[in-house]
Amino acid sequence: MSTAPQPEGGTQVHHIRVRYAETDQMGVAHHSTYIPWIEEGRTEWLRAQGRSYRSMEASGLILTVMTVSLRYRHPALYDDLIRIETWLGKKGGASLTFCYRLSLAEREGEEPGLLIAEAETRLGLVDGEGRPRRLPPDMLPGS
Amino acid sequence: MSTAPQPEGGTQVHHIRVRYAETDQMGVAHHSTYIPWIEEGRTEWLRAQGRSYRSMEASGLILTVMTVSLRYRHPALYDDLIRIETWLGKKGGASLTFCYRLSLAEREGEEPGLLIAEAETRLGLVDGEGRPRRLPPDMLPGS
Amino acid sequence: MSTAPQPEGGTQVHHIRVRYAETDQMGVAHHSTYIPWIEEGRTEWLRAQGRSYRSMEASGLILTVMTVSLRYRHPALYDDLIRIETWLGKKGGASLTFCYRLSLAEREGEEPGLLIAEAETRLGLVDGEGRPRRLPPDMLPGS
Amino acid sequence: MSTAPQPEGGTQVHHIRVRYAETDQMGVAHHSTYIPWIEEGRTEWLRAQGRSYRSMEASGLILTVMTVSLRYRHPALYDDLIRIETWLGKKGGASLTFCYRLSLAEREGEEPGLLIAEAETRLGLVDGEGRPRRLPPDMLPGS
Repeated sequence: MSTAPQPEGGTQVHHIRVRYAETDQMGVAHHSTYIPWIEEGRTEWLRAQGRSYRSMEASGLILTVMTVSLRYRHPALYDDLIRIETWLGKKGGASLTFCYRLSLAEREGEEPGLLIAEAETRLGLVDGEGRPRRLPPDMLPGS
Repeated sequence: MSTAPQPEGGTQVHHIRVRYAETDQMGVAHHSTYIPWIEEGRTEWLRAQGRSYRSMEASGLILTVMTVSLRYRHPALYDDLIRIETWLGKKGGASLTFCYRLSLAEREGEEPGLLIAEAETRLGLVDGEGRPRRLPPDMLPGS
Repeated sequence: MSTAPQPEGGTQVHHIRVRYAETDQMGVAHHSTYIPWIEEGRTEWLRAQGRSYRSMEASGLILTVMTVSLRYRHPALYDDLIRIETWLGKKGGASLTFCYRLSLAEREGEEPGLLIAEAETRLGLVDGEGRPRRLPPDMLPGS
Repeated sequence: MSTAPQPEGGTQVHHIRVRYAETDQMGVAHHSTYIPWIEEGRTEWLRAQGRSYRSMEASGLILTVMTVSLRYRHPALYDDLIRIETWLGKKGGASLTFCYRLSLAEREGEEPGLLIAEAETRLGLVDGEGRPRRLPPDMLPGS
């Protein structure tokens, strides 16, 4: 029986397939491409909470990235299917920290589950003019 | 009853969702991002023929892009679901021409079906050293 | 003595160096990266006419890309210095066609001058709401 | 008179200009584009030591990125000229830590010097098969 605390909003699972354009001449996905991948994971996490980031932004609630950290464990290869787990790590007054775990979901001749990378991003909430905003009380689960 | 000739290998339908990183400050998907999208369409077209481009390349059968032409019709927006239709337009001795039609599959408040773009790419078949190769007889449907 | 007509605004020369992130697993610059390169060439062509595209856009004069065509001649490699020549090919009432020629400027062990690619883009002039605008009389040389 | 220790190999200054394709719909350079920028800074740092990364890689000395961390301070805008300072932060047996400071070099109507971002990357040295290698004694200054 697990007593570990569940992250607020739960963990959202999303998959991406590595594009040819995302590889580099080392024969692996270039390390910069992970940022758009985890951004996609974050979008899907929000959607799972019933929030579309497109609508949020249109209504003047903008999440800006303040820090990113990435730890690369095993290379992702062209055509790999990558599983991205996204969860809310911490919720401050005007900031949110998201955590990500990327693992291999499908590659011919390889067991799924291989750890590809771990990442963390801290985001601030601002309005259309870039002024900090507090998280609206109803914005996220448990708020 | 249609008597229009069917393209060899048929038309393959694939979907992508526009990433935030793919937008530009005009508020639309930047026009360079369409190239990785249609490349993904081509990969899925090959997979539907029972060919993985990853395996093809690993066995020394490489498709290099010789020309690209793109006609942009309506902007694609962040979070749009885009439908990509891919078909084989022409098959030469050592080259393949692929055609693509991109249309809107899903956007809040918009009817699906809006034409986003049309594209065409001509690819040459080369080996690992970049020397032209002829299409193997069993390579593609109807070959 | 050349009697060939000079393109309006002349030919602007700009250089870019191929980034590692721009290569793919074929060991060459991915064909999608050429679009941001020629866009940089266009920006510098405009700057040479005394126009900053940043200011143009801020004042509601927006150039949207309607078509792109690219012909790849020889691969560009990581760390190559690429020379981009940009000139105005045609000027319509509300559209501009730009032409580009990319060639090798510097690669160890290679003569400069190798033709890398040729490209053409047609752009429409629109205002901030996406409505077509006519070219202002003073906008471009010879207008 | 400063007595602060000088980083080995010194600090290398490199400039990039923000491309239109690098902006996103928030009107700023997307945070993923900073990774190719600092990679360019690292390439120039190596070149200043008399090392071309292209030759290093060709000879089987490959630097793979193990971690990246980025702290975004002020947004970079389209057409900004960005100054990238790169220095070697730490040298382990088979790893190198590079540090980067990005600041504004040129934007109309803005004082240069604005801090854009700070970053750090840790790289491991591997051979062509991905096996860890020790830094060759003559590889870097002070080795």
